[in-house]
Amino acid sequence: MAGNTRNPGQSVSSRLLAILAVFDETRPSLSLSNIANGSGLAPATAHRLVAELVEWGALVRTDSGEYVVGRRLWKLGMLAPDQADLREVASPFLHDIYGATLATVHLAIRDGDQVLYLDRLAGHASVPAVSRVGSRLPLHATGVGKVLLAFAPAEVRERVLGSLTRLTPYTVVHPGTLASELRRVHRDGYAKTVEEMTLGACSVAVPIRRRDDEVVAALGIVVPNLGRDRATLVAALQVAAQGIRRSFH
Amino acid sequence: MAGNTRNPGQSVSSRLLAILAVFDETRPSLSLSNIANGSGLAPATAHRLVAELVEWGALVRTDSGEYVVGRRLWKLGMLAPDQADLREVASPFLHDIYGATLATVHLAIRDGDQVLYLDRLAGHASVPAVSRVGSRLPLHATGVGKVLLAFAPAEVRERVLGSLTRLTPYTVVHPGTLASELRRVHRDGYAKTVEEMTLGACSVAVPIRRRDDEVVAALGIVVPNLGRDRATLVAALQVAAQGIRRSFH
Repeated sequence: MAGNTRNPGQSVSSRLLAILAVFDETRPSLSLSNIANGSGLAPATAHRLVAELVEWGALVRTDSGEYVVGRRLWKLGMLAPDQADLREVASPFLHDIYGATLATVHLAIRDGDQVLYLDRLAGHASVPAVSRVGSRLPLHATGVGKVLLAFAPAEVRERVLGSLTRLTPYTVVHPGTLASELRRVHRDGYAKTVEEMTLGACSVAVPIRRRDDEVVAALGIVVPNLGRDRATLVAALQVAAQGIRRSFH
Repeated sequence: MAGNTRNPGQSVSSRLLAILAVFDETRPSLSLSNIANGSGLAPATAHRLVAELVEWGALVRTDSGEYVVGRRLWKLGMLAPDQADLREVASPFLHDIYGATLATVHLAIRDGDQVLYLDRLAGHASVPAVSRVGSRLPLHATGVGKVLLAFAPAEVRERVLGSLTRLTPYTVVHPGTLASELRRVHRDGYAKTVEEMTLGACSVAVPIRRRDDEVVAALGIVVPNLGRDRATLVAALQVAAQGIRRSFH
């Protein structure tokens, strides 16, 4: 194995996983040398393992010669029950809200210190939003993110409050201001944002609880402005969240 | 390595992939011995590799002691461009159709000899359908499936026509009848089913073409009955399919 890798202590299986780990939202398409560099593998090793992954269907070589994630991993990922079950249970409720409002509707969970979008409904009448299924955004600047942050363990909240980045002129970047807003979210059971992530987009969001009361996700809606619709939107989201809770096994 | 596996010629990396290959729609949750049996690996090897996959986040051990696909593979699978790009481009059009009809809307591609559901929109007003995102159904009994079959290579069509299984009393299982129906689908540009997959559910579907005219997916809608709405639904689907085609880069 010597000379075969820059990290000789690494097992073959961990080298295979190191290749997969190089792919993420910011790097969905990579050349062989990107893969070798990103995984810390010698080019020959990367070449051989990438060929195995392509043969299996985990990766696909594009016309440009770069590698991307293949259909087989998509199908495998769809089996993830935490994501699939929550989406499956929540889906009809999300569609009911979409049908009634034609606004962008989001289902999201916390993934470390970010919000991860599990589902997103949007038509041509909806406000453009930067979210995408599987993509992640900051917790502090999105409606679903604020809900998840308000109900997150204290250490997550402290970490996030310690590094608030500005995304628009209206992003709340003062830790004390956001902390008191999160206490209000916790108390009132909903969060809002006003152009804090994207100019021209406002949002409200509510927690989704399991039967044991634990907050497992957030349900949000993005609209051009909140105005007098806020109470109505919050009520619709809360009805849906209750329905989702009752639908859990 | 001798004695470490029942298939000593297999590389470590292919053993890791053999473990992932055991998981599918019909077996989303597996015990360690299921995994060892399914992958043909010795229990000790399976145990060690499963532990690596759990540590990486590809698999998760449930409370019952079985293993399921983890969030990390879900996120990785979401990067698959064939699936993600098509969904992303089609999504607003699907939502427009859903918003107008509140019926179940499907986006599907052909995956070998089956139809694979990439997206599915359904609210509480929609007809219950057996589809699920990432799940597969027979080509010959679904609207989207018939479209994909009509535009599939001849050898796929011959293979599928050679083994038509009955799902309801209305499933078309006579190869000659289905073949002439598929010629009609090819000519008219849409397919329909009348309770052929599920009793109480009818469907219409149209092809989605790329700019080079190749059929890459099908767009369908499921309703309780077709009756006089058929022409309207087909027209709505065709408008959406044209819109999707124009949205491809």
